[in-house]
Amino acid sequence: MSSPPLPDQMTAIVLDSYSGVAALRVEQRPVPKPKKNEVLVRVAASPINPSDLAFLEGLYGIEKKTPTIPGFEGSGTVVAAGNAFMGRYLIGKRVACIGRERGDGVWAEYMVTSTKYALPLADSVDLVQGAMSVINPLTAIALISMAKQAGQTAIINTAAASALGQMIDRLGRSEGLRVVNIVRREAQVEILKRVGAQLVLDSSETKFEQNLKEICQQQQIRLAFDAVAGSMTLHLIEALPPKSKVTIYGGLSFEAAQANPGQLIFQEKTVDGFWLTAWLAQKSLIQKMLIWRKAQKMLKNELKTEIRAKYPLEDAKKAVIDYQEHMTGGKVLFVPDL
Amino acid sequence: MSSPPLPDQMTAIVLDSYSGVAALRVEQRPVPKPKKNEVLVRVAASPINPSDLAFLEGLYGIEKKTPTIPGFEGSGTVVAAGNAFMGRYLIGKRVACIGRERGDGVWAEYMVTSTKYALPLADSVDLVQGAMSVINPLTAIALISMAKQAGQTAIINTAAASALGQMIDRLGRSEGLRVVNIVRREAQVEILKRVGAQLVLDSSETKFEQNLKEICQQQQIRLAFDAVAGSMTLHLIEALPPKSKVTIYGGLSFEAAQANPGQLIFQEKTVDGFWLTAWLAQKSLIQKMLIWRKAQKMLKNELKTEIRAKYPLEDAKKAVIDYQEHMTGGKVLFVPDL
Repeated sequence: MSSPPLPDQMTAIVLDSYSGVAALRVEQRPVPKPKKNEVLVRVAASPINPSDLAFLEGLYGIEKKTPTIPGFEGSGTVVAAGNAFMGRYLIGKRVACIGRERGDGVWAEYMVTSTKYALPLADSVDLVQGAMSVINPLTAIALISMAKQAGQTAIINTAAASALGQMIDRLGRSEGLRVVNIVRREAQVEILKRVGAQLVLDSSETKFEQNLKEICQQQQIRLAFDAVAGSMTLHLIEALPPKSKVTIYGGLSFEAAQANPGQLIFQEKTVDGFWLTAWLAQKSLIQKMLIWRKAQKMLKNELKTEIRAKYPLEDAKKAVIDYQEHMTGGKVLFVPDL
Repeated sequence: MSSPPLPDQMTAIVLDSYSGVAALRVEQRPVPKPKKNEVLVRVAASPINPSDLAFLEGLYGIEKKTPTIPGFEGSGTVVAAGNAFMGRYLIGKRVACIGRERGDGVWAEYMVTSTKYALPLADSVDLVQGAMSVINPLTAIALISMAKQAGQTAIINTAAASALGQMIDRLGRSEGLRVVNIVRREAQVEILKRVGAQLVLDSSETKFEQNLKEICQQQQIRLAFDAVAGSMTLHLIEALPPKSKVTIYGGLSFEAAQANPGQLIFQEKTVDGFWLTAWLAQKSLIQKMLIWRKAQKMLKNELKTEIRAKYPLEDAKKAVIDYQEHMTGGKVLFVPDL
């Protein structure tokens, strides 16, 4: 299949140093060329995720050489490929595309990624939902499947009003788990209840610690997923019954996770971490395909993402600031063609 | 075997509330009577351990009803027993005695404990070494055996100049492990090197974090035992290579253990806890007997404890303050008959 002629230059958002939104600028760059086992994607949309914010601050697990184009996920159409079968097969296809551990990300008109990081989208999935079909949906699937494999019937999740938080609640409930949703502001309680969440606790409330302990005892919850860290981890560890585990999957408090030594020692509790990339790496190709198929089927309901705003690449700083200020009111996306 | 007549009253150290050394007093109390499956021990000696200090402050995992007699371990002679075979068998025997999760501890002239917490001492072990033959020696054996079972060839240990720290270093080396000893003051480096430690790092040094990281990489250390918690845990987690674990077995910093979320998430690191009681509970009776025999054989060398001072029970506060002020210069013991 032949693709339309490609321009030489593209618009891209560039991060100059790991000092947050202030270090972002928009520039013209050469359109990159795919090597073997790589494809070039014409980007349709790319969201701002909490992991992107951490990356801008140098707090993500991986630091790329700066200047670099941020953006961990997005969607688009494959317009060129290096000289390999899989790449040529993908040309013309609509894909979800993921930035690699090295090299530039998705916040640009075009991006190059590995053929295995370009996942064909089902016809039922539009490019906007497709742009948000990997990180949050697969994380929700992973966490819920881990909870079920560990034999849990109830779990805790924090930062529960976020896009991912809402997915975890919906998917958990649809798979028969009771989900205790922890939010950090009173207004978020209503948001979550309106979308059907049954158990919501507000950590800013005075009785939070006591309520959390009671619900952990009642429901015999032994597993908490924590995207906040800092003192949230401390409270979770204190509230859970003996032999429980807190799995950290984010650091929204921008603080170190805390745990009382006595709780770890005498109550045999554990703190560990979850990383989607590591979880997926343990899966076979077939398992990955089944997970991807499941995610796409659920994008309209359990794994749906609300959208609040779309910005052109030129509004890089404005868009990131908008998202930072209202992280729970729906996703903010970059749409190069807006 | 008949025992000499018992007095009605005894001297005991009593903790009135969980507010530390200030809440200690010495009083006369009735000598307790052993029930079925219990023995009465005439106490010969009882050390002050870090776990006792934590208990006095209410920071130990277990809170007993106050007023209570503190003291987790000691030694003595069994002078009376409840009406059960094992108790009668123990009468007249020299034992190491351990305080139970409920009821009074060892800092008194007499103490009652369960027959399974009165461990007969080998003839080669005197009552003073016998008083310190359980908590530290069995903890050292447990930690080193856990490291070996996990296939480690090198480990880190913190608070390494303490009595337990020195045991871990000696036992680890004698069992073929490289032990990286972390101390918190420069003077302790010399103490440890003088007793044969090969790898010692001082966490108060400016290059500590860098040196720790280098040694972790060089030796491919994936397991750290941490008795300090607080920011020590943070540094350990940062320094260790991916997929490592920090096992907390004490909280000498009196602060929450800290861990950077990014390290837990992207480097798949874990923080958990070690409690001797839980470790021993997993062992069969035969395994426990073999561990106890091993501990006693090693009390003169690998698991030896240096003694700095002995105090009568009447000097309760003075003794605890003395130990608090110099926790690494050798053990402080209560000797009721001093």
